[in-house]
Amino acid sequence: MRIAIDAMGGDHAPELIVQGALQAAAEWPDTELLLVGNASAIEPLLAGGIPSNVKLHHAEDVIAGDEEPVKAVRRKKDSSMVVAGTLVKEKQADAMLSAGNTGALMATGLLVVGRMSGIERPALAPMLPTQDDMGVLALDLGANMDAKPEHLLQYAIMGSVYRAKVHGLSQPRVGLLNVGTEAKKGSELTKAAFELLEQAPVNFIGNVEARDVLSRNCDVLVCDGFSGNILLKSMEGAAGMIFSSLKDAFGHSLLTKAAAAIMLPRLRHLKKKMDYKEHGGAPLLGLNGLVVKCHGSSDALAVKNAVGKARIALQGELISSISAEINGK
Amino acid sequence: MRIAIDAMGGDHAPELIVQGALQAAAEWPDTELLLVGNASAIEPLLAGGIPSNVKLHHAEDVIAGDEEPVKAVRRKKDSSMVVAGTLVKEKQADAMLSAGNTGALMATGLLVVGRMSGIERPALAPMLPTQDDMGVLALDLGANMDAKPEHLLQYAIMGSVYRAKVHGLSQPRVGLLNVGTEAKKGSELTKAAFELLEQAPVNFIGNVEARDVLSRNCDVLVCDGFSGNILLKSMEGAAGMIFSSLKDAFGHSLLTKAAAAIMLPRLRHLKKKMDYKEHGGAPLLGLNGLVVKCHGSSDALAVKNAVGKARIALQGELISSISAEINGK
Repeated sequence: MRIAIDAMGGDHAPELIVQGALQAAAEWPDTELLLVGNASAIEPLLAGGIPSNVKLHHAEDVIAGDEEPVKAVRRKKDSSMVVAGTLVKEKQADAMLSAGNTGALMATGLLVVGRMSGIERPALAPMLPTQDDMGVLALDLGANMDAKPEHLLQYAIMGSVYRAKVHGLSQPRVGLLNVGTEAKKGSELTKAAFELLEQAPVNFIGNVEARDVLSRNCDVLVCDGFSGNILLKSMEGAAGMIFSSLKDAFGHSLLTKAAAAIMLPRLRHLKKKMDYKEHGGAPLLGLNGLVVKCHGSSDALAVKNAVGKARIALQGELISSISAEINGK
Repeated sequence: MRIAIDAMGGDHAPELIVQGALQAAAEWPDTELLLVGNASAIEPLLAGGIPSNVKLHHAEDVIAGDEEPVKAVRRKKDSSMVVAGTLVKEKQADAMLSAGNTGALMATGLLVVGRMSGIERPALAPMLPTQDDMGVLALDLGANMDAKPEHLLQYAIMGSVYRAKVHGLSQPRVGLLNVGTEAKKGSELTKAAFELLEQAPVNFIGNVEARDVLSRNCDVLVCDGFSGNILLKSMEGAAGMIFSSLKDAFGHSLLTKAAAAIMLPRLRHLKKKMDYKEHGGAPLLGLNGLVVKCHGSSDALAVKNAVGKARIALQGELISSISAEINGK
């Protein structure tokens, strides 16, 4: 099994990306890792020796975080991200990972790796944190801003296969993000999607309200990309405001600082729990190969974890399983 | 000025609703309050004497929290909510308040009080809490699930007039809830609304991401009712999960309990800050009269505060000001 890693994408590229790849290579000797990026930037990071299951694949160019995604992907054929995508397309790699420009990675998925036959729109599917630390797979979180009911149906199927193959859940519970739990609630989109999901070959448990997502009453949360983005960023915003206010409150006096010292380890754990970045890479589902988005701020551990999940997905034949479900084979 | 109060709607009706009305009557002797509801339930609560500016207006029936809104409003003509709406329609009251069934109140607004001429869809406009305690008026938060760009434009105008008249802001900053700050970001809906808002007679500052809403970089947040609901309930969900985890963390040992004792007053303040219910009533804008939704869990203070805000809105001639802006007079 061979995984291409965009060594140049992300806030800590190439240093921590390469470090994470080396850690993954040591942990999983059966997995070959292709470090895609500028040789002159990567080689010094391999001065300690290159493990036999790591290969450097030179790519001259880099797509920056603020570049216009589609233009960048079309123009920069020799960028680390596009080259990694090309390796997947040409079956020289089974999967690719990148912590770079999210929009450009979605464009690479569509324009380079290619859409899976039968899929209308690919979906970005990160894990959201939940109260019980198990997480919920939410999709779409931003690949497709104007979803149709049929897209939501496909998200449900892809998400269910992913949870079964990667997390070993049998009969993952699928919920539809909505403004109320009753069947007739919501927009035209959610009402039509609800009817499709009731007939679908998934374990559909009905509508889920945004405030209940973190209680994990479902394993797969289906939503359109716009609402999904609002969901994720609202939670981030609320958590950020509370933690910042807590910091102020704990810094108020000597007494509150003493309280802070007592509580610090537990608060750190809580903050980490609320941080969806910690949950590792998010697959872009519905493509002709496995493409994984790592958070821009990924460190070595995040990269290593993402490699680990990609391995499990490949071992479970995720892509062909999704294709079989979507195309009813 | 005369304000009709649905004395029978809400978790604590009629007791705390009547108590709040009595407090408001004492504070603002110039304001006449009509307590609408079942006389046999309300009269015992007025045993201590009825102030001269409080009148009891009997209504036999009540709309329950779980009734199907439109059906209930059509059938229960003699319910406290519908009677209060009828008083506004017939100009026997200038405004109405209710802590009852939200859907039924929106139906009462549309079917009884009536839509303002020139308005396509009324909007529910609560204040969301912000880091600086000033709050942001968000609309629509659920009156209209399938908004068109023109609706969002009207929300922006109505919200701006409300912030100017009720909170005294000159040039309130209007933001559009979106998935990114750049002009071209978002769904077909937000892209079209962005263009309309740029031309509108409001102080449009551009797109606002969900995670930045609480930092209050705008005074009026415009969104469709579906996304607005997701925004609000995601924040509630995240805050609920954090506070529940904090409670667990503080309850862990004697030492953490000591820390809790030190921190309790500050944590209470923070929890209160995050609670949008504390921000009082939410106007339903775009009707032929002022209709205010109080939270279902409203206590006497919440009712009194809602009366206070309704007074300011009426003094500022909110309804005719909105009509003038919408109809370009």
